[in-house]
Amino acid sequence: MKTRFHHALLLTMTDEGEPFDGELWTDGGRISFAGTKEEAAARKAVSSEPVHFDEEIDCGGNLLMPGFKNAHTHSAMTLLRSRADDLPLDKWLNEQIFPVEAKMTDEDIYHLTKLAFLEYLTSGITACFDMYLTPVSIAKAARDAGFRVVQVGAVNNFSQSPELVEEMYGTLNGNDPFNSYRIGFHAEYTCSRELLERIAALADKYQAPVYAHISETEGEVAGCKERYGMSPVAFLDSLGMFAHGGGGYHLVHIDDKDIEILKKRGMYAVTNPGSNTKLASGIAPISKLLAADVPVAIGTDGPASNNALDMFREMFLVTGLAKLRDRDASSVDARKVLKMATVNGAHAMGLFDADVLVEGKRADLVLIDLSQPNMQPVNNICKNLVYSGSKSNVKLVMIEGSVKYRDGAFFIGESPEDIYAQAGEILTRINREMKAE
Amino acid sequence: MKTRFHHALLLTMTDEGEPFDGELWTDGGRISFAGTKEEAAARKAVSSEPVHFDEEIDCGGNLLMPGFKNAHTHSAMTLLRSRADDLPLDKWLNEQIFPVEAKMTDEDIYHLTKLAFLEYLTSGITACFDMYLTPVSIAKAARDAGFRVVQVGAVNNFSQSPELVEEMYGTLNGNDPFNSYRIGFHAEYTCSRELLERIAALADKYQAPVYAHISETEGEVAGCKERYGMSPVAFLDSLGMFAHGGGGYHLVHIDDKDIEILKKRGMYAVTNPGSNTKLASGIAPISKLLAADVPVAIGTDGPASNNALDMFREMFLVTGLAKLRDRDASSVDARKVLKMATVNGAHAMGLFDADVLVEGKRADLVLIDLSQPNMQPVNNICKNLVYSGSKSNVKLVMIEGSVKYRDGAFFIGESPEDIYAQAGEILTRINREMKAE
Repeated sequence: MKTRFHHALLLTMTDEGEPFDGELWTDGGRISFAGTKEEAAARKAVSSEPVHFDEEIDCGGNLLMPGFKNAHTHSAMTLLRSRADDLPLDKWLNEQIFPVEAKMTDEDIYHLTKLAFLEYLTSGITACFDMYLTPVSIAKAARDAGFRVVQVGAVNNFSQSPELVEEMYGTLNGNDPFNSYRIGFHAEYTCSRELLERIAALADKYQAPVYAHISETEGEVAGCKERYGMSPVAFLDSLGMFAHGGGGYHLVHIDDKDIEILKKRGMYAVTNPGSNTKLASGIAPISKLLAADVPVAIGTDGPASNNALDMFREMFLVTGLAKLRDRDASSVDARKVLKMATVNGAHAMGLFDADVLVEGKRADLVLIDLSQPNMQPVNNICKNLVYSGSKSNVKLVMIEGSVKYRDGAFFIGESPEDIYAQAGEILTRINREMKAE
Repeated sequence: MKTRFHHALLLTMTDEGEPFDGELWTDGGRISFAGTKEEAAARKAVSSEPVHFDEEIDCGGNLLMPGFKNAHTHSAMTLLRSRADDLPLDKWLNEQIFPVEAKMTDEDIYHLTKLAFLEYLTSGITACFDMYLTPVSIAKAARDAGFRVVQVGAVNNFSQSPELVEEMYGTLNGNDPFNSYRIGFHAEYTCSRELLERIAALADKYQAPVYAHISETEGEVAGCKERYGMSPVAFLDSLGMFAHGGGGYHLVHIDDKDIEILKKRGMYAVTNPGSNTKLASGIAPISKLLAADVPVAIGTDGPASNNALDMFREMFLVTGLAKLRDRDASSVDARKVLKMATVNGAHAMGLFDADVLVEGKRADLVLIDLSQPNMQPVNNICKNLVYSGSKSNVKLVMIEGSVKYRDGAFFIGESPEDIYAQAGEILTRINREMKAE
């Protein structure tokens, strides 16, 4: 399949440059050309045979940019959306989240993950960094839907072992362009020291980065200091956990020494402002991370915590909350936020070939409708995206060279109605099971 | 024009009740029936002649609810969207906002206000409480578009006099259903004491409520205390300003004594969380206001401050920021937020006949699409609206019995393309004038 996007405003995200009048070609899963109109004409002129396309898409002057990368989520928790809100954290977890999760089957998770894919597409998200319970059924959902998923281990004392993570690391890092896998664990407070040491050994064996929830709440940090006399970042680092880099999800309650360690280990900070707001966890020190040159990526977290899987909401929150925290309206400008939501997200997940719109990279991109009132007038397109942009501006989403969403219609091999019906049936069944107990 | 909405989930907002399977009829600008399917059948049965409708709309099981009320905005500042972001407040105001505003004509403001109407409609907003410079051209925009606008005086030392406010109070509170007018001033810090006393006298003369920006920033409060030895709320109250009620926009930096005064005077607190976040003003004490029984309404503020005019973003922020401020995930639940965005907003603006979906009230309503991934599965519809809802869920908006927006198309008497073109021309002209100076 060869596609030509023309009459586009192209935002390649390769540098700080403004969007320009350009076009982009795809061939199979890759970008085969991205440049100005003039460069496109020149490329055609030097081609030995006529350049043929299966589809030509007139972008109508709208913005073509890299797809957003959701760098931390628990996709299948769609089932728990709006079920446990407005509750204190302990009730949220113990009375709602855990009992429902205990009843979810592999097949349930397959369907509920697909429901999340639909929502990701509506806000222009082309890949997610997913931590959940059943890696095999999640990988099948990714493959069946043609949605790019990087899974990460969720080792903990109760439900996932380093052995499973090692097995998945071996099987999911193959030739399937929609699936890859990273070593990870749930969090310091849900893993014994012995378990953490086994994960660090695994990282050492494969010379691989490691990811986990780190310093999400004040209580978590206090607990770790009580257990080990160190902050979670410092303690995990002392085990050699991040010898090959990795990343922390949340990182709300960190100090300057923690930030030094993140920098030294080449780690990514994945911020989750919607979740941190709704669960009252706090505001992450984004300006400090940027000042220390720690790359920041953005995640929605799961739908039980947020509850939307909407990168536009997260982008506004990243800069808005930083401004509030710093008491400075100039903190964390729009361009930095856009980079976090695209390039940094891709890199945090290890998708180094799906970051920018350049020849040879994977064709993961999104077309943004500028002809809507929230994008008018056009003083500055990048600021419009971050400060007034909305998922309603997403016209088209392409992953691996295939259109997956266009003008409200989905192309993931199953109808949204069927997916909603599955989710509804799962909800009814689990509610019935819980009532019967 | 008589319209029948059937096969709807009806959320009347008359009480804390859940949405129910129902239908709603309109006749001219008013609701002629709202109730269950059974009640609708009974009403038809007792009618002396056959009940006829000009249009019957099958809602497909989607949610029919009151339109959102944007209780504080500066609509025509659409021109300044994305022009002055990521700047400290003084540079934002003095280098960008003021110089551009000085070049805006009455006709510019007419077109730029219409641009805001388009955006309001996309997020289900059916009325706005607008403070800006040229009441006559704004009223014409409201009338031409059929959009409900309550204007409020913006008296200040530089550009708007109590005389203009009194004149508009007389002319805009007539029989035009789309226009009404309230007494107001910009803020304590932009009005001399003598000017404020004249506004208080006006309020006394008409026994009318008064509205203003109050205690938006720490600097404003400190300045007032230096000038008058009192907080802005206490000082303005000492002038008799709120003898007949009214409201404060922002109210971020207020203390318990201020809240007591608001309660005693029967005032509304209009919160603007998007603006307060983006301009780093702070987080308003919503839980304290609710505990003191001060009704809270929600405004987007103007597009230069926010920059979106999106009630869904504001609803999430109201509860999210309250949870952050209170360090309590159970603060300000979804149902309270929905009431703020609908009923309280209408009451704050004085629209007591456009608040809930009940026979005899004005037909200002919105149809919310539940068949989108962010609304699935349905654990709780009201929580879905506040925590994962989006303007992309707005299917249809009716104002005064007329459909103004449906499935992405606008019906305000002028095409969006023409309005965008006008806004673009105004921007080009003003940029040219500024360059020439």
